[in-house]
Amino acid sequence: MSKAYTVADYLIERLTQLGIRHMFGVPGDYNLHFLDHVVAHPQLAWVGCANELNAAYAADGYARHAPAAAMLTTFGVGELSAINGTAGSYAEYLPVIHIVGAPSVEAQKNRALLHHSLGDGDFEHFMRMAAEVTCAQASLTVENAVEEIDRVLGEAVRQRRPVYLLLPSDVSETPLRALPQAAANISAPCAPDSLQAFAQAARELLKGARHTTLLTDFQAGRFGQTAALRKLAAFPGLAGATMMMGKGILDESQANFSGTYTGSASLPPVKAAVEQADVLISVGVCLSDAQTAGFTHRINEKKRIDLRPFSASVGGYRFGQLPMGEALRVLNELAGELAVEWRLREETAPDAPPASAETLDQRAFWHQIQQFLQPGDIIITEQGTASFGFAHVRLPQDASLTVQTLWGSIGYTLPATLGAQMAQPDRRVVLIIGDGSAQLTIQELGTLLRQGLKPVILLLNNDGYTVERAIHGPYQSYNDIAAWNWRLIPAALSQNAPCNVHRAETVAELRQVLQQIDKPEALTLVEVMLPKYDVPDLLGVLCRTMEARNSAHG
Amino acid sequence: MSKAYTVADYLIERLTQLGIRHMFGVPGDYNLHFLDHVVAHPQLAWVGCANELNAAYAADGYARHAPAAAMLTTFGVGELSAINGTAGSYAEYLPVIHIVGAPSVEAQKNRALLHHSLGDGDFEHFMRMAAEVTCAQASLTVENAVEEIDRVLGEAVRQRRPVYLLLPSDVSETPLRALPQAAANISAPCAPDSLQAFAQAARELLKGARHTTLLTDFQAGRFGQTAALRKLAAFPGLAGATMMMGKGILDESQANFSGTYTGSASLPPVKAAVEQADVLISVGVCLSDAQTAGFTHRINEKKRIDLRPFSASVGGYRFGQLPMGEALRVLNELAGELAVEWRLREETAPDAPPASAETLDQRAFWHQIQQFLQPGDIIITEQGTASFGFAHVRLPQDASLTVQTLWGSIGYTLPATLGAQMAQPDRRVVLIIGDGSAQLTIQELGTLLRQGLKPVILLLNNDGYTVERAIHGPYQSYNDIAAWNWRLIPAALSQNAPCNVHRAETVAELRQVLQQIDKPEALTLVEVMLPKYDVPDLLGVLCRTMEARNSAHG
Repeated sequence: MSKAYTVADYLIERLTQLGIRHMFGVPGDYNLHFLDHVVAHPQLAWVGCANELNAAYAADGYARHAPAAAMLTTFGVGELSAINGTAGSYAEYLPVIHIVGAPSVEAQKNRALLHHSLGDGDFEHFMRMAAEVTCAQASLTVENAVEEIDRVLGEAVRQRRPVYLLLPSDVSETPLRALPQAAANISAPCAPDSLQAFAQAARELLKGARHTTLLTDFQAGRFGQTAALRKLAAFPGLAGATMMMGKGILDESQANFSGTYTGSASLPPVKAAVEQADVLISVGVCLSDAQTAGFTHRINEKKRIDLRPFSASVGGYRFGQLPMGEALRVLNELAGELAVEWRLREETAPDAPPASAETLDQRAFWHQIQQFLQPGDIIITEQGTASFGFAHVRLPQDASLTVQTLWGSIGYTLPATLGAQMAQPDRRVVLIIGDGSAQLTIQELGTLLRQGLKPVILLLNNDGYTVERAIHGPYQSYNDIAAWNWRLIPAALSQNAPCNVHRAETVAELRQVLQQIDKPEALTLVEVMLPKYDVPDLLGVLCRTMEARNSAHG
Repeated sequence: MSKAYTVADYLIERLTQLGIRHMFGVPGDYNLHFLDHVVAHPQLAWVGCANELNAAYAADGYARHAPAAAMLTTFGVGELSAINGTAGSYAEYLPVIHIVGAPSVEAQKNRALLHHSLGDGDFEHFMRMAAEVTCAQASLTVENAVEEIDRVLGEAVRQRRPVYLLLPSDVSETPLRALPQAAANISAPCAPDSLQAFAQAARELLKGARHTTLLTDFQAGRFGQTAALRKLAAFPGLAGATMMMGKGILDESQANFSGTYTGSASLPPVKAAVEQADVLISVGVCLSDAQTAGFTHRINEKKRIDLRPFSASVGGYRFGQLPMGEALRVLNELAGELAVEWRLREETAPDAPPASAETLDQRAFWHQIQQFLQPGDIIITEQGTASFGFAHVRLPQDASLTVQTLWGSIGYTLPATLGAQMAQPDRRVVLIIGDGSAQLTIQELGTLLRQGLKPVILLLNNDGYTVERAIHGPYQSYNDIAAWNWRLIPAALSQNAPCNVHRAETVAELRQVLQQIDKPEALTLVEVMLPKYDVPDLLGVLCRTMEARNSAHG
């Protein structure tokens, strides 16, 4: 075996320079040689997943808690199995580098009739498909490998979106002379005129404002603006608010945090803070249907300063070539310079109706969860009753939420838990997922156990697709699922990893179980029995608006 | 609720006219209204799967044993999860009709920021992706629905390949006045000149031939030529042979059946029959790497009559616009007219080395399987040690093999078993799958149990990805998998369905277990313990040629 420094080594070096320490995927005959280099590298660990879609979800979850993520699949079958996960990373701005082990350049050129191809000699079908859901792609050759790897990885970091590298098995093994230099500067361009005009417009709007609200969302976190936003949020009298996907960017334990904005389904304090502000500063906000209870938000564009990843607008007027970080720096300067005297409103949330002491329903469950959470937790909620129920839970200090509200791929969170826990081994990860969702990706529980990870998994057993029942067809058989024995699953999926399994049918049982799980010593699965037709209030509002849209002729 | 006859009803009617009796898929908010029509239809049953990729595999398996198949997913997340399965149906010629429930036409036109979209207002990303792996696509509107449904379904049947229908929720519910007419004629065009020229050329070649061999493969079955081929194979002295993917088209219990042709790894009788024939009639043959032990086939084009779905060639000269059925009719006529006096060769296969009476290894396993099979069985072998080991097993009468050798997507066969057994409830289905493969799609075992199906599943436990180990990295950790308790899986995935679970560690145990399973009364899972590094001979040959190709610089 030659010990030459190869294209494979170069690519792995670049990944580690980005801060990537784990690679997720499934081995396949076109990527096995590349894998030799992965497992030999001291700074990169291979995490074999049970299937490729799960690997893509895991990589996405990892990228939410690390600088970026890497995924390896084989050609055709492997990459297409993963592509729904990549699409989610694209929609929700996660830099996942997808490396696809491919047939040799020679075989491709000869249009060979190879397995894992469509049999038509065209080896570019799948790269064309990937181009719809990645921000950059390259088909690597011996000649272009160094430049294309740097270009494509640079785009992933700059745009915070997934990219695609097709790596033929022979290219991977080709020796290189040059070692990688320090990574090139990848900051986005900023136009000075645009920046100045933005500062002027923002100053005009902010000058006379009394009630000012900062509304944050996930893009702000993806583009690294959490610290700058927390600085802005600390100015006295500024009200903080968040969208569901942005929970955890602001410190929700602070008094000026007003809550999670969800359009007409918002609680009164945050609704007033967002809709009646003299100035609303919105940062990286995505007003999608599921975040706004079906487009029921009421935001006055004239009073809005809106920051996006690479542009901003003030009162509806747009400023291009203006990275979010630059605009935020200006706002922090203005807030200091204007010696703002902002005032918080005094709306308070209505007391929640007292939960029955006995019945374990959605209301009682979320009340218990609020008590259970600890500072620093990573909470992961499946898009369904879990995410909508969590919207109005207040995050403890330094806790964060992982939720996939825009793409909303059912089953995403179980493998995402693997990714998040690998990225942050010292934090407690709490997954809240329904039984319908967990069936889609259950095999990754085996990987969690194999890796010795210790997340807390709260499995909401409401006997089927309750989120779909809430939307349409509550009593239709198509919303039923196979009845599993959830408490047998961990033992079936691991021969020797320790695991704690519980079941809670009453509020008292749930309280007692949660009290036992402080810092879990092993993976802990709690089957939480919930009523089949009970949904969180927010989901009820959303479903009524969605059903109206879906049944124009209903 | 209006009881009008809608676009949804029209589409369902057309599906049932094709002979489709089951629809596979996963409910999602953009397809729930359509599902109301599905579950209400007396001739179509809904089969909810645990995830969309599994649904696609199940639909593919169904289409192999029924006239066509139908699959329903939701927009974006659902369809992309399924797309690898669709690509397999495209590569291997299965007419699977993929219906995607989509947002309303109005919402698409408004570029609404909807969940399950990429958030960029472009609702055609996924149809463009589908266009790479389907033979026809349509975005249905109220205006085009009837014509486009007929066009796209017609293409599926004519080309025997998957198609894509994007069905917005409002279009689905739109009332139609016209009921469907009988389906239009969808036969492929045949050019009379081409047919005549082909007949002339074939006659010339066949006239003096003594040793003539008929080599069949999967496309012949897909295009409905099994009866015509069996008729041809019955002419005295004609030697029959099959490719792996075509097993079951010819009657392998007949004396003139020489075996499965696998290039240099073929057994002597079939190798001689194919490579030394005076004339080789090949029908729908795919000479892919995995079918030919890495392109080690030796076929003389000058002596070949080759039939493809829509063309043929004789001695290397091609005749276009010539459907396989027409060409085959000509060959049957010629065989009668020429009063052919073909002679079989007399090569015999070497006796297999005697298997040790005790050690349960690949050789002993396949010997037991040969004894176990019954006439009429549907055998399904996962692409790995299972499919390669099965290549030289002789199928009993009216038995058939389902195998995905060209696309080769790991995990395919477990959901395909669901599809095959739904299509053929009265036949015994025997799935042979490895432990590594079964992990990818295990949740569909829950659906098999929920549906009360009774396949026999032989789970080859060799502690990881043995097929990958054979190719490269036998001792590398990336070829290991999580260690599961396979015998606990059925109980974990079903609360009440009966199931028989066995384990075989020795030849005697395997023999005893198989003797118990004649006509199984319940789903039966047998965990067969096999040595970690033992592979069938054919796989060994293939791996050596593949490894040479993959490691040009190794």
